Amino acid sequence: MFVIDEDRVFEEINRRKAKRIVFNAPDGLLNKVQALAKKLEDIYNIDAIVIADPCYGSCDTVDDDALRLKADVVFHVGHKISLSNLGKRTIFIDAYDDISFKEVLEKALPLIKSKRVGLCTISQHIHSLKEAKEFLEKNGIEVLIGEGKGQLLDGQIFGCEFYPVFGIKDEVDLFLFLGQSRFHALGVALSTNKTTLMLDPYLKEVEDVTSLANERIKRALFAVYKALDAESFGVIIGLKEGQINLLRAFQIRDKLKNLGKKVSLIALREVREDRLLLFKDIEVFIQTACPRISIDDYHEKLVLSAPQADALINLLEGKSVDEFLIRPHWL
Amino acid sequence: MFVIDEDRVFEEINRRKAKRIVFNAPDGLLNKVQALAKKLEDIYNIDAIVIADPCYGSCDTVDDDALRLKADVVFHVGHKISLSNLGKRTIFIDAYDDISFKEVLEKALPLIKSKRVGLCTISQHIHSLKEAKEFLEKNGIEVLIGEGKGQLLDGQIFGCEFYPVFGIKDEVDLFLFLGQSRFHALGVALSTNKTTLMLDPYLKEVEDVTSLANERIKRALFAVYKALDAESFGVIIGLKEGQINLLRAFQIRDKLKNLGKKVSLIALREVREDRLLLFKDIEVFIQTACPRISIDDYHEKLVLSAPQADALINLLEGKSVDEFLIRPHWL
Repeated sequence: MFVIDEDRVFEEINRRKAKRIVFNAPDGLLNKVQALAKKLEDIYNIDAIVIADPCYGSCDTVDDDALRLKADVVFHVGHKISLSNLGKRTIFIDAYDDISFKEVLEKALPLIKSKRVGLCTISQHIHSLKEAKEFLEKNGIEVLIGEGKGQLLDGQIFGCEFYPVFGIKDEVDLFLFLGQSRFHALGVALSTNKTTLMLDPYLKEVEDVTSLANERIKRALFAVYKALDAESFGVIIGLKEGQINLLRAFQIRDKLKNLGKKVSLIALREVREDRLLLFKDIEVFIQTACPRISIDDYHEKLVLSAPQADALINLLEGKSVDEFLIRPHWL
Repeated sequence: MFVIDEDRVFEEINRRKAKRIVFNAPDGLLNKVQALAKKLEDIYNIDAIVIADPCYGSCDTVDDDALRLKADVVFHVGHKISLSNLGKRTIFIDAYDDISFKEVLEKALPLIKSKRVGLCTISQHIHSLKEAKEFLEKNGIEVLIGEGKGQLLDGQIFGCEFYPVFGIKDEVDLFLFLGQSRFHALGVALSTNKTTLMLDPYLKEVEDVTSLANERIKRALFAVYKALDAESFGVIIGLKEGQINLLRAFQIRDKLKNLGKKVSLIALREVREDRLLLFKDIEVFIQTACPRISIDDYHEKLVLSAPQADALINLLEGKSVDEFLIRPHWL
C-alpha cells in the first residue's frame, strides 16, 4: 500500500499559510491524492485542486500550471528524488510503498549465481534497499548500491536516467531491481548491458528481463537502420516543463541538416501517435521529450529517441553505430 | 482551398526581427503551416517551430508555450477574430477559404420560406458574407447580419459564443449558416432556438439542423436530470490559456457545496474521458473548459457544461430549469 507523506504537506501548508494548493501525481495515486485534497480543504478551509493530466515522473511537474491556477504551492506526489522542491512552488512529496520484499528475496536467493550484485529500485521502494542489502549480505552475497547523482538518490533509477547502476556496472555481474516494474528493470538491463532480475514483491516472483532487453535493443536498432534512407525528419521538442530540451533538439536538427536532410521542428506536450500522423510529409520523427516513448511503444511511423538519433547520425556520417543505450542518461 | 495570410507573417517577422517563431493551428491546417514554417526558415534563416497539440479555437493560443520555447512571436493560424494579437507574443493569422457559396445559395433559395433571415458563418468564410447577402437580397430576401462583440466579428460565431446571432434572433425566423460545419450550425440553432439551415459549399447541399438541435437539447437536459441524485461532483478547470475560468469553476463549486454536495476541484489541459475515469469516487463532472465537450460528445460518466450546471443548480434550488442553452455565450 502506498503511504503519502502527509505530514510534509501539512507542514508546508502551515509554513506558507497557503490558501490555494495544487496536486499532481501519477495515475495510480490520483484517487488517494484526491481524498487527501478533500481532507485538506475541510481542515484548512482552502482550495485544493488536483491536476489530472498524465504525470510520467519527476520530469512532469506543473509549476507553471499552478501559477495559472493562482496557487501558492504545488505538491508533486509519488516521485521522491534528491531535491525537496523545484521551481517557484513545487514540493516533492514522498509516497512510499510498504510492501515487504522478504519473500521475493528468499525466492531470488537460489537464482543469484553471482557473488557480487548491484541493487537498485525506484522512488517508492527506496526505503527497502537497506533491508534487502542486509538480507543478501547475511546470505553471503556482496551487494553494491551505486551512488546517486543529480536528482537520483543512492540506488535509485528513473525511466531515463541510470547513474547509480551505470557507475557500478563493471564491478558486478548481476543487477537486482526491487519492484513490480518491467519498464524500470528493462532500463537497468539496457543501460548497463548486464543480466537484470526484477524482484516483484506483489506476485512474489523473480523475472530475468535480459531476453526482453535484448529484443528491445534489437527493435531500437532496427528502427535506426530503417530511418537511414529517410529524407524528411520531424524533430520533436517536448513542451512539459521538465521535458523541454531545446539544446538537444537543435543539436540533432543541425546535424541532420548538415547531412542534407529536410528537418521540421515540432513541439508537443504529449507525444501521441495521433498527433504525429497529422504530418503527412514527415517520414521519421525524432523526439527529445522522453526516450521511453521510442524505446517501449510501437508506432506506425518511426519515432526515434535522442540516443537512437545519435546512432543514426553516426551511421550517416560513416561511423559505427555505437552502443547507444549503454549510457547513464538517455537524453 | 485555405489561403493563409502569409503577408502578415512576413511583415511581423520583419518588424520584430524575429529569430525564433512558433505556429499553432487547428489540425486541418497543420500541414500547410508546416510547409510555411519550412519556407520561412529557408528565407530568413530562423527557427520555426510548429506546436502540434490539439487547437480548438481562438481560446487555444500558446503564448506561454512560445515563451518556454524562447520564441519571439507565435502565429496562431486559422481563427480570424476581431483582435489582431493577444498576450505578449500571439498574432492571429487569417486563413480564409476561397470556396464559392454561389451554387449552394441557389439551391437554398426555394427552401427559404421566410422573408427575413439572419446570416452567419465562421472565421474562414467571413469574407463570403457580403456576397451571400447581396445574392439573397437580389432574390427578395431581407438579410440581417448581427453585430460582432468581444472577439467576434459581425456575423461571426464560435462554437461557444453566439452574440451576432443571439442579438438578432427575435427579428428573424430563420438563420442561414455558411460553411460545412454541423458543429457550428448546431450552435446557432441551440443558442437562438430558431430554424437553422447549414449551407455546405463543398457538397453544395442545404441541411436543416433543427431536428438534430432538438435531439441535442434533449440529451443535454436528460444529463442534467440524471445528475440530480448525485452526491459527489468533480468541477473541472481547463488549463489551456484561453479556457481557464477560475471564477466560474469556483462559483459552481460554491453553489454545489451550499446545496450539500461533495465537490472536488480538478484541473485538466485536455478534458478526455480516459482521464475522468481515473476518479472512481466522482459521480458527475462539471467542466468549465469548453461547453462543447459536454454538449456534443458522449461520455461514460456524466460530464456537464457550465450552462448545464446552472440548470442543475436551479433544479436543486427548486427553481425551473430555464432555457439554459439559449444564451449568447455558453460559459
